[in-house]
Amino acid sequence: MASDFNILKQRIDEELARQDLAGQPAGLYDPIRYTLDAGGKRMRSVLVLLASRLFTDDVEPVLPAALAVEVFHNFTLVHDDLMDQAPIRRNQPSVFSKWSPNHAILSGDAMLVQAYSHLAQCDSSHLPHILKTFNKAALAVCEGQQMDMDFESSQEVGVGDYLKMIELKTASLIQLSMELGAVLGGASTEDIGALSRFGNHLGMAFQLQDDILDVYANTEKFGKKQGGDIVAGKKTYLYLIADQLSNNGMQSKLHTAFFSKELTDDQKIDEVTQIYNELKVVSQAEQKMQEYYDKALSCMEKISVNNEKKQDLLLLADRLMVRDR
Amino acid sequence: MASDFNILKQRIDEELARQDLAGQPAGLYDPIRYTLDAGGKRMRSVLVLLASRLFTDDVEPVLPAALAVEVFHNFTLVHDDLMDQAPIRRNQPSVFSKWSPNHAILSGDAMLVQAYSHLAQCDSSHLPHILKTFNKAALAVCEGQQMDMDFESSQEVGVGDYLKMIELKTASLIQLSMELGAVLGGASTEDIGALSRFGNHLGMAFQLQDDILDVYANTEKFGKKQGGDIVAGKKTYLYLIADQLSNNGMQSKLHTAFFSKELTDDQKIDEVTQIYNELKVVSQAEQKMQEYYDKALSCMEKISVNNEKKQDLLLLADRLMVRDR
Repeated sequence: MASDFNILKQRIDEELARQDLAGQPAGLYDPIRYTLDAGGKRMRSVLVLLASRLFTDDVEPVLPAALAVEVFHNFTLVHDDLMDQAPIRRNQPSVFSKWSPNHAILSGDAMLVQAYSHLAQCDSSHLPHILKTFNKAALAVCEGQQMDMDFESSQEVGVGDYLKMIELKTASLIQLSMELGAVLGGASTEDIGALSRFGNHLGMAFQLQDDILDVYANTEKFGKKQGGDIVAGKKTYLYLIADQLSNNGMQSKLHTAFFSKELTDDQKIDEVTQIYNELKVVSQAEQKMQEYYDKALSCMEKISVNNEKKQDLLLLADRLMVRDR
Repeated sequence: MASDFNILKQRIDEELARQDLAGQPAGLYDPIRYTLDAGGKRMRSVLVLLASRLFTDDVEPVLPAALAVEVFHNFTLVHDDLMDQAPIRRNQPSVFSKWSPNHAILSGDAMLVQAYSHLAQCDSSHLPHILKTFNKAALAVCEGQQMDMDFESSQEVGVGDYLKMIELKTASLIQLSMELGAVLGGASTEDIGALSRFGNHLGMAFQLQDDILDVYANTEKFGKKQGGDIVAGKKTYLYLIADQLSNNGMQSKLHTAFFSKELTDDQKIDEVTQIYNELKVVSQAEQKMQEYYDKALSCMEKISVNNEKKQDLLLLADRLMVRDR
C-alpha cells in the first residue's frame, strides 16, 4: 500500500510538473509554479485516484479530475494564507509574503481557472455531472472559509456551528475527491452516493484529528509548531468543548488565557493545554473523531465491490487517522 | 434596436435577481448580491445573446452562458477594485471598501465559481467546447490584469505591450461573449471563428474608445470623473502615443507632469491634456480605434447570415463606439 500510494502521488507530481507554467507574465505564473512545486502530500488528488480504482484499473482518464482537485486545494491555500495573514506555508514564505497580496489574489484566481481547465479534460460524457459536483464543493469551501473568519470575532460559536464549518471548509473537498473518482471510475449511482458520504465522514474525522494534533502532536513529525491554533486564537473543537464543559471559574480562566494579550505564546499554550488536560477534552474529541470514522467505514461496507479492492483506500484512511502523533 | 437591447438587458437583470443569493453566511453572499444589484450595462451578457440571435431565435438556452459571462465580469471588478485600491465602483463604495479586503477576496472567489455554475447549465452537447473557451478567456483576463499591474511600475511599456495587455484584459471577454453566443446558437465552425474575431477587434476598439473618453468625454454622460486615468498614473494608449511622439523637451514635460507628486489632480489633468492636445494624440487613438472597428466589420461581413439579422449586433457595436462623448 505505502508504495502504491507513493506511485500515485508521484504520478500527480509528474503531471503537475508537466503543466505549462513557464508562461508570461511571470508575476502571474511564478507564484503558481512556486505553490505547486512546494510539495504537499497530494492527499486529495491521490484520494480521487484511489476512489476510482475501486471500479476501474485505468487511472489515466481520472487524472484530470485529480489534478483539478489538487490545483483547487492549492488555490485555497494561496488565498487563505492571505486572508489569515499566515506568513509561512510548508516551511516556506506564503505567496502573499514572498510576492505581494495582489500577486496572491491574482495567481490564486488563475489557479482556480486552471483547476477548471484540468476538469475540462475529463471525458465529455461525465462532464455535466462532475462540473456540477465540483462547483457545489467549491462554493461550500468558500462558505466554510467565511464562517471560519466570522468565528474569529464571534463570541457565540457553538460546537454545532463549528462542525458545520469544517464540513463545508474541509470535508466537502474530501467528499468531492471521492465522488469524482467514483463517477469517473464508472460506479453506480448507489456506490457514488456511498463513497461520497464516506468522504464526508472521513473529512470530518480528518479535521478533528488535525485539531487534536495541533495541541498533542509530536511536533517534529507533524511539521507544525505545537499549539499554533491556540496562539492564533482559533476556536477549534478542543476549545469549544472546553468552553462547553467548564464551570464558571474554569471557563473564565480559559477565556482569560485564550484571549490574553499579555501572556507569551508559550505561556498561553501551557495554560490553555493545562485546562484542556483537566477537562479531558482530547478524549471527547477522539470519541467524536471515532464516531465519524466509524460512519465512514460503514459507508464503505455498503459499496458493492469486493473487500480486497477496498484495502488501499481503507489503509490510506487509517493512515490519515493515526498521523504521526 | 434600442428597445430590443433593453429587453435583453432586462432579461439578464431578471435572471441575476432570481439567482439564489439570500444564502448564508451573509459575509459571503451580501457582497455578491450588492455587486450584481449595482447595475451596470450588462453589455457582455447582452452581446452573448445578440451573437446567438444571428443563428437562432430562441435565447433561452443561451441565457446560462450570458449569465456566466456577466457574473465573471463582475468577479473581475470585485478583485480588480481591491488590487487597484479603487474605493468607488458605479458611484457606490467598492466591495473591499464597504466590507473588507477579505470579503472582497472570498466573495469574488465565490462569484468565479458561480460563473461556472451558470455555465454548467448549458446543454451538455456544447459543454466541452464552451468550458474550454471560457477557461481560455478567463486565464487571458488574469494575464492581462497582471500585465496592467506590472506596467504601473515599469518604465519600459511600449505601445505593442499595451495593445497585448488590453487584448488579454478586455478584448478576450468580448471575444468570449461572441464565441459562446455563436456556439450555443448552433453556428458553423467558420462563423464561430469569424464572430470570435469580430469580438476581439470590437473589444480592442472599445478599450481604445474608453481611453479616449477618460480624457475627452462629456463627464456627466460618461459617469466617470474626467482624467481619472491621468490622476491614477495609468499608462493608457494616449499616454504611450504621447510618450512616443514627443521630442525630448516635450517628453520630459510629459513625464514631469504625469509622475508629479506636487501637482494637484486638476493641475495634472490640465498639463497632461494640454500635451495630448499639442501632439494630437486623440486623432491617432481614434485612427487606431477605427482600424480595429473596420476589421471587426469585415469579420462580420464574412458571417453567412443575411444582413438584416446582423443589424442588432452592428447597431450595438456602433453604439459602443459613439458612447456619450
